[in-house]
Amino acid sequence: MNTRRTWTGHVFIATSVDGYIATTEHDLDWLVDPPPEPGHVGAQPVEHPAPDYDGFTAEVTHMVMGRGTYDKVTTFDSWAYDRFTTLVLSTTLPAGGDERVTVVRSIPEACSMLADQGAGKAYLDGGQVVTAFLAAGLVEELTITRAPVILGAGLPLFGALPHPVRLVHLGTSTIDGGMISTRYRVTHAGDSND
Amino acid sequence: MNTRRTWTGHVFIATSVDGYIATTEHDLDWLVDPPPEPGHVGAQPVEHPAPDYDGFTAEVTHMVMGRGTYDKVTTFDSWAYDRFTTLVLSTTLPAGGDERVTVVRSIPEACSMLADQGAGKAYLDGGQVVTAFLAAGLVEELTITRAPVILGAGLPLFGALPHPVRLVHLGTSTIDGGMISTRYRVTHAGDSND
Repeated sequence: MNTRRTWTGHVFIATSVDGYIATTEHDLDWLVDPPPEPGHVGAQPVEHPAPDYDGFTAEVTHMVMGRGTYDKVTTFDSWAYDRFTTLVLSTTLPAGGDERVTVVRSIPEACSMLADQGAGKAYLDGGQVVTAFLAAGLVEELTITRAPVILGAGLPLFGALPHPVRLVHLGTSTIDGGMISTRYRVTHAGDSND
Repeated sequence: MNTRRTWTGHVFIATSVDGYIATTEHDLDWLVDPPPEPGHVGAQPVEHPAPDYDGFTAEVTHMVMGRGTYDKVTTFDSWAYDRFTTLVLSTTLPAGGDERVTVVRSIPEACSMLADQGAGKAYLDGGQVVTAFLAAGLVEELTITRAPVILGAGLPLFGALPHPVRLVHLGTSTIDGGMISTRYRVTHAGDSND
């Protein structure tokens, strides 16, 4: 499949310190509206920063999200993904019901569509999508932002994988609100260390 | 119970990016003997660092570990905990079988012993101990070091908690080998933000 790829897979996502991307009730207040905490160290200058959202999305051509993420983001006041062609991976969502997205039924179908459309940088979102693409060797980079809370329960970013995935640490930013953002490159089997 | 406390609870532990402290087979090679990766950014100077192990342990008076951690560390060539009084929390480990440790049967018994001995800084180790002490409001600080690998399965640092635990970000260090170490203070209910 890789020989047909025009695109690379990229993750940009926030989690709690214990690795959840949402509470069990799909709540994000802990991330987007946390109580003020003046004790956090502020944003720090660093030599090797992680990208911010605007930097990350600047070159994104396509987005792939799961059904859970789709159901969540369609509750938001505005649609943040007009700049990309957005695929929703779902076996049950009716096709054609939302002209902002294209429904695909499987990862191979998503990959075929990305290849057919000459996708460049694909933004992969949601725990199940990220885990499935990692397991398939289709993720090249991850930027993970840790929010300063241990939720104790919720929807995990990472599920079970059939093998460990080694990462290369490309940079870390301490940003506001106690957040720490780290950019990693995925080392695929057979990659050279040169 | 807090009114009797002479001590504060501190965590210093490494996890994979997906939050595991060991593989399912209790293996730590991914942490202590990873393959060389010259692509990692090197150690970076930072204004607010996280402590290293020597800095963290300098003031430790007592250690509390679980049975799983005890079984692991007793396979190591040397015993690294002579500087502390070490309690092992276990309902089944025979008492008195290892003069280097004191076996306690419950968290209240551990707390009583720490209080009776005038403990100051207690080093809490192992996923089950850390989670149980967090749930009981007995952790004041955590330093978590992330190794650059997604294991995909293993023994988690954090288990289920009855409530979220809010943290204050005190500093982050980018260290060698692609590791990122972050120091947090726990915000207990009723803490002032002043």
